[in-house]
Amino acid sequence: MFTDEEKEAVYKVIFTRRDVRSFLPDPVPQSAVDRILEAAHHGPSVGFMQPWNFILIDDDHIKEQLAWAADKERRALAIHYENDDRSEKFLDLKIEGLKEAPLTICVTCDPSRGGSHVLGRNSIPETDMMSTACAIQNMWLASCAEGLAMGWVSFYKKADVRDILGIPPHIDPVALLSIGWTDVYPKAPILETEKWRKRERLKELIFHNKWAALGSI
Amino acid sequence: MFTDEEKEAVYKVIFTRRDVRSFLPDPVPQSAVDRILEAAHHGPSVGFMQPWNFILIDDDHIKEQLAWAADKERRALAIHYENDDRSEKFLDLKIEGLKEAPLTICVTCDPSRGGSHVLGRNSIPETDMMSTACAIQNMWLASCAEGLAMGWVSFYKKADVRDILGIPPHIDPVALLSIGWTDVYPKAPILETEKWRKRERLKELIFHNKWAALGSI
Repeated sequence: MFTDEEKEAVYKVIFTRRDVRSFLPDPVPQSAVDRILEAAHHGPSVGFMQPWNFILIDDDHIKEQLAWAADKERRALAIHYENDDRSEKFLDLKIEGLKEAPLTICVTCDPSRGGSHVLGRNSIPETDMMSTACAIQNMWLASCAEGLAMGWVSFYKKADVRDILGIPPHIDPVALLSIGWTDVYPKAPILETEKWRKRERLKELIFHNKWAALGSI
Repeated sequence: MFTDEEKEAVYKVIFTRRDVRSFLPDPVPQSAVDRILEAAHHGPSVGFMQPWNFILIDDDHIKEQLAWAADKERRALAIHYENDDRSEKFLDLKIEGLKEAPLTICVTCDPSRGGSHVLGRNSIPETDMMSTACAIQNMWLASCAEGLAMGWVSFYKKADVRDILGIPPHIDPVALLSIGWTDVYPKAPILETEKWRKRERLKELIFHNKWAALGSI
């Protein structure tokens, strides 16, 4: 059971967690990294398959290669915005802090773990990635509770990241997580502050018994 | 910033959260449901696309139809285990409590939300589902902190759930979440207790700078 104070702490971390792109160079204590990884490993997983691995990256040369892969992808995406009125805004956004952050964690998903017929994944195969995402959310909340900032970078081609980190072809590098200290922990999502996109009204996302039927229980 | 007590509460909920399949009939208070949905909506999302919708299901007839879809899928999966030594164990497992739980929430993912070039999703399209999974993990942790049990059912064909709930073809019903009170909140994952699958050793899942290179930072 949870006391009112514990319950409040859980909601506090859920509401204050932010995706961060700016980091200080100070190292992250190993003990905090251990707790964050333990939190990840206690994420739920379909059929208890635990499809995740974690590559801890603190080597500057490798970080530079990852930053190169992300920047190349950013420039490629910029081309898709060239006839869009958000083009300039896109180019102004700081979308990753891979070189700044003292630690990057590449989280992978192994779809072959647990054999051919993983309980529950047989019906919805992408539940392996969704399990990995739940583990990442645990890491995010744990980092926030530790006072650490985390950013999830998804601007890259998986093949580049496989090449750089020596990841086998059947393993999916689903996330590059930057972790470190920051002096600017955002109060609101950066993309909301930068007026890239608004928060949806929750009420309009909730239906009752049927799709598009409004109402509460 | 988080106090030591708040930090402990965050880890407590991460470590005690379980996937539950047995529920009491008592209703879930609307205020708790509201907080759980608010927690979901404060999940991270790629390009702030917030691709989720939530269908709250408390109608007995609809719950029966969902339970039928899940049971049909369970029986179909049992066939895949027929030459497997886990076959009897599979048939003994209680894999869903859709009819028992007072509330089911169908969480959907709309890949079209946010337009054609969602920031970050352009590179890794499945980040929409992963965002939805992060929202689900927030719901799970919030439920646990509320003293409520939650179970994620992924035994169904999406087409069946679309038919039952009137969900448009381009929207993905990625999860059926059972929520309610329970008198048996499990201390360990049910599939671990039932000796279906063991917990992996975390140390063996962590690499340093390169895939399969052991060591810490």
